[in-house]
Amino acid sequence: TDLEAGVREASNILVVGGCGALGADVCEKFKSSGFPVISADLRASEVAPENIVLGAEGGFPEQAERAVADAEKLFGERKCKAVICVAGGWAGGNASSKKLFETADLMIRQSVHSSLVAAKLATRLLDKDGLLVLTGSAAALQGTPGMLGYGLAKAAVHQLAASLAGEKSGLPEGATVLAIVPVVLDTPGNRGGDTTIHDDWTQLGDVSRLLHTWVTNKKQRPPSGSLVEIRTKDFKTETRVLAFGPAH
Amino acid sequence: TDLEAGVREASNILVVGGCGALGADVCEKFKSSGFPVISADLRASEVAPENIVLGAEGGFPEQAERAVADAEKLFGERKCKAVICVAGGWAGGNASSKKLFETADLMIRQSVHSSLVAAKLATRLLDKDGLLVLTGSAAALQGTPGMLGYGLAKAAVHQLAASLAGEKSGLPEGATVLAIVPVVLDTPGNRGGDTTIHDDWTQLGDVSRLLHTWVTNKKQRPPSGSLVEIRTKDFKTETRVLAFGPAH
Repeated sequence: TDLEAGVREASNILVVGGCGALGADVCEKFKSSGFPVISADLRASEVAPENIVLGAEGGFPEQAERAVADAEKLFGERKCKAVICVAGGWAGGNASSKKLFETADLMIRQSVHSSLVAAKLATRLLDKDGLLVLTGSAAALQGTPGMLGYGLAKAAVHQLAASLAGEKSGLPEGATVLAIVPVVLDTPGNRGGDTTIHDDWTQLGDVSRLLHTWVTNKKQRPPSGSLVEIRTKDFKTETRVLAFGPAH
Repeated sequence: TDLEAGVREASNILVVGGCGALGADVCEKFKSSGFPVISADLRASEVAPENIVLGAEGGFPEQAERAVADAEKLFGERKCKAVICVAGGWAGGNASSKKLFETADLMIRQSVHSSLVAAKLATRLLDKDGLLVLTGSAAALQGTPGMLGYGLAKAAVHQLAASLAGEKSGLPEGATVLAIVPVVLDTPGNRGGDTTIHDDWTQLGDVSRLLHTWVTNKKQRPPSGSLVEIRTKDFKTETRVLAFGPAH
């Protein structure tokens, strides 16, 4: 089967943001399926056997170059079957918010900078027919007046996915780029200590399973550059494939 | 007339990025129509009689807070009829580009950070029924594989305009937010010393005239949150009003 072939090739899965709630679930899913998993995050993952620990010193270009150098050193001649960027975060605030600049800066770091690092790593490490996944947000498909920084950062990620899917983007030939576009994920952060069960929140396992399907079976992947909205209703998770572009 | 009323009210026009090619043309247009024009840029404008000179020290949040404090000091009790952000820049580079991180960082600074400063200034300074204009790019309505940083930064600006037009965005009631979305502007930077006349490049005067119309006649403004594509063919410039959102 496709799955067994994937495992046999022992191609690596690099998870950028492997220590977040979704990141840990993704690492666990691929690890338990027999894939070698490497996490890249600000600390070492408790799940992934290999880690790239990102430093926070210096500006973004320096940090990012260091991450790439560390990854190349760790990987050597090895290649990745998938680079999956699930780094991110959330902060609210409209234009009047006292912390507008601070939160926008943080959102850009967490979502855009991490996606750019994943993109660069994909150019160096991704196998032919490999998969690059970025993480967007359904909210940012429209305006987000109450969370300006979050929305603009996720919108930037959506456009970046479309760019990377284009000709001469720098990715290996045959690679697929997808942005997952969740509505609300069932994470400890989103719960905030509340134990209420929401029938319209998406379980992390649903997302990890989807990623696993795309990795192991290329035919299951939507067209490269797609925004794949992940929406849950009555505990049932469905996807909707959107193309980046303006609504006329 | 509407124009005379605008001049009589002596409402100020704040141009963020007043020293760029488009910025200088916009300053000139409003100044010659009798509006008090204030430029905010890294240096003082030769056209605008009043200036906010932005500092480059510290990170973005500190720089931006300083810009807001300086503007509030300069304006005192005065209000703006329009805040027009025409700051920006261009850099190419795909994911393999050696300077990917550097150029993406620069594009975010020039386009996203300046737009966020303009948004914050609009919350403080914009009059009821005032106009906030941000500057996007037609290229970023799709993927831009050869200019990743530029595309994602402009896509972020498009979404920011949609956010600011939404309810409780923090802008004064009745304010209009528009993003101008040019294809190619006829600037010295884009010409690069070449004197060829392009019949499909947009003259800066066409853009300034459009902005002047929107400022002086509210009825001429497209719906708030619109992306207004500005396209020139056979020396004739036309606009097309788009809504932010995914293409299905």
